[in-house]
Amino acid sequence: MKRMAATLGVLALLVSVPALCSADPLPGWRDSPVRQRILAFVTEVTTPGGPGYVTPAERIAVFDDDGTLWPEKPRAQGMFALQRLRSLAGDHPEWQSQMPFKAALELGSKYLEEASEEAVFQLVAAAYAGRTQEAFRQDVREFFATARHPRFERPYTHLVYTPMRELINYLKANGFRVFISTSGSVDLARVLAEDLYGIPSDDVLGSSVVTTLREEDGRLVLRRLGSVHALNDGPRKPVAIDLQVGRRPILAVGNSNSAGDIDMLRYSQQPGVPNLQLLIRHDDFEREYAYDEPDGASVKAANANSWLLVSMRYDWLQIFSAE
Amino acid sequence: MKRMAATLGVLALLVSVPALCSADPLPGWRDSPVRQRILAFVTEVTTPGGPGYVTPAERIAVFDDDGTLWPEKPRAQGMFALQRLRSLAGDHPEWQSQMPFKAALELGSKYLEEASEEAVFQLVAAAYAGRTQEAFRQDVREFFATARHPRFERPYTHLVYTPMRELINYLKANGFRVFISTSGSVDLARVLAEDLYGIPSDDVLGSSVVTTLREEDGRLVLRRLGSVHALNDGPRKPVAIDLQVGRRPILAVGNSNSAGDIDMLRYSQQPGVPNLQLLIRHDDFEREYAYDEPDGASVKAANANSWLLVSMRYDWLQIFSAE
Repeated sequence: MKRMAATLGVLALLVSVPALCSADPLPGWRDSPVRQRILAFVTEVTTPGGPGYVTPAERIAVFDDDGTLWPEKPRAQGMFALQRLRSLAGDHPEWQSQMPFKAALELGSKYLEEASEEAVFQLVAAAYAGRTQEAFRQDVREFFATARHPRFERPYTHLVYTPMRELINYLKANGFRVFISTSGSVDLARVLAEDLYGIPSDDVLGSSVVTTLREEDGRLVLRRLGSVHALNDGPRKPVAIDLQVGRRPILAVGNSNSAGDIDMLRYSQQPGVPNLQLLIRHDDFEREYAYDEPDGASVKAANANSWLLVSMRYDWLQIFSAE
Repeated sequence: MKRMAATLGVLALLVSVPALCSADPLPGWRDSPVRQRILAFVTEVTTPGGPGYVTPAERIAVFDDDGTLWPEKPRAQGMFALQRLRSLAGDHPEWQSQMPFKAALELGSKYLEEASEEAVFQLVAAAYAGRTQEAFRQDVREFFATARHPRFERPYTHLVYTPMRELINYLKANGFRVFISTSGSVDLARVLAEDLYGIPSDDVLGSSVVTTLREEDGRLVLRRLGSVHALNDGPRKPVAIDLQVGRRPILAVGNSNSAGDIDMLRYSQQPGVPNLQLLIRHDDFEREYAYDEPDGASVKAANANSWLLVSMRYDWLQIFSAE
C-alpha cells in the first residue's frame, strides 16, 4: 500500500508536468481569437467538475493530413508513386495513353499540384500493385529518407506545419487521442505519423487498396492489388471514423480544398457535447501557397456552422521549423 | 533542464512499478509449461539489448473474443439480438419462415449455442437495422446491465475468463498494445471492451454493418442498415488487422472452434521477430464447456505451427472470478 501511495503521488506529479514545462503550448500561433478559442476549449473539456468536462476516453481529435499538417502541393504520396511509375513505365506501355498515368508521367510534380485526391491515390495503387505490405512500408521509409520538396528544397518530413505539430502535442498532453484521417494512402501516412508525430499506426485512417492473403514459402503474406478498397474522402470520412474509432470526435481539423473535410467537421458537431472545428485556409503565397475552392464550399460551411477559420498568413507566426 | 531531469527520474521509477506491485502477474494460471512460456516470451521481448528485444510500438497483441475471453455458448451478441428480434417479430412475419430468424425465434439460446458466427451476426444486423450508432451503443449498455447467462445465472460481464484478464493486464503493463479481433459485432464489442478491459474502442476489430450518413434535424447521423459490411472471421482477420492496425501482431490468441482464428495466428508468425501463439481448448465440462471442432483443424494447425495449446481444465486454476 505504501508503494501504491507513492505511485499515486508520482502520477499526480507527472500529470502536472506538461503545464510546468511549457508556459506557452502554442508559440507558433499569433495571440489571436483563434488561438484563444483553442486554449479555452481545451481548458473547458479538461476541467474536472466543470460544465464542459469531457472524459479522456471521449477526447477524440481528428486531423486531415495533406494541406492540414503539411503542404499538399504537390501531394507527397503522388511524388512517391511517380518515382516508381517512371521505373516501371517500360513494362506498361498503356500508361502512355491512360489517365491519370499519362499526365503524371508527362507533367510530373506540376500535375500532382492540381490532381484530385482520387487520381493521386489511383497512381499509388497502380504503382505498388504486387508489393507486400511490409515491402511497401520499407519503400515509404526509403523514399522519404531522401526525397525533397521541389519548391522548398527540403525533405518533406521537415515541412510539417509547426503550429499543427504544437497543437497535436498540446492535445496529447491534455489526454486527447489524436487521429489522422487522410484521403491519401493509409499505409504511407502510418509510417510517417509514427516518425513525425508519435501517433501509433492504428490511429491513422485513410484510403486503402485491396490486399490478398497468400501463403508463400510456408507463411502468410498480404500482397497489394492495384484496385482501390476505399477512398477516404468527403462523406466517407465520418463513416470510416465510426468504423475504426467507434466514437464521434469532439475536435476536427481540416483545410479548405475540394470540400473533402466538410462532412468530417460537421460530424464532430453533436448537441450536448463541447466540440470545436478548425478549417485551415491557404492564404500565404509567400511562406506556403495561396489557393481556395472555386465554389468556396468549405468556407461557406465554416460560416454556416460556426467553425474557426484559421488563416495561415495571420494566425501562424511560423509555418515551418527553422531547420 | 532541472525539471526535465526530475521528470526522467520519475518516468524511470514508473516503468518499474508494475514489477514491484505484483510478484505473480498470472495467479489464475497453473505453473505449467504454458505459463512459463508466456512469462519467458514477455521477458524476452521487453529486455533492452537482449537478442529478442521488440520496441513498444511493435508489441502488438491480438485476442479473439467469444470463446477466448468469455464463453461463446450461447453467443452473447446473439442473446442481445434475440430480445429485439422478439419485440419486433410482430412486424416481420417473414422471420417465421426465414433462416436464421426462424431458428433463433423458435429455439432461443439453444440455437445460439450452435449457430455459426455468420448467422449470429446476421441476426444482430437485422435486429438493429435503422438504429443510429449512438442509440445502438446505448442499447448494448442497457442489455448488458441486466442480462444474465442462462446456465451460469450471472451477468455476462462477470464471465470474463480470469486468466485472460490477467494476461491482458500483464501485457499492457509490459508496453503491449492489446487489440480484440472478434467475429461478432465490432460496435457491441467496443462498448464492452472499454468497460471490461480498459481497451479503447478503436483497439477493437470486428464484424460491421453498412451504415449510411444522413442529415437529420440539421446534423449528421450514422444509421445502421441491415446488410453486412464485413464479417471478421478466418482469412478476413489478417486483412482487417493490416487495414486497421497496420502492423503484424507478435502475439495472437484464439480458441479452437470453427477454425476462425487459424489465419490470424499464422499471420502473427514472421521470421526474424519473436512471436507467440496461444490456442485455447474448451475441455472443462464442469467449470465451462467441453467441445472441439469435428475436423480438429485448429489443433492440427497448432501442432504443425508450434503454437501453445492452452487447456482450460489443466492450465487454468480459476476460470471465472468469485463474485
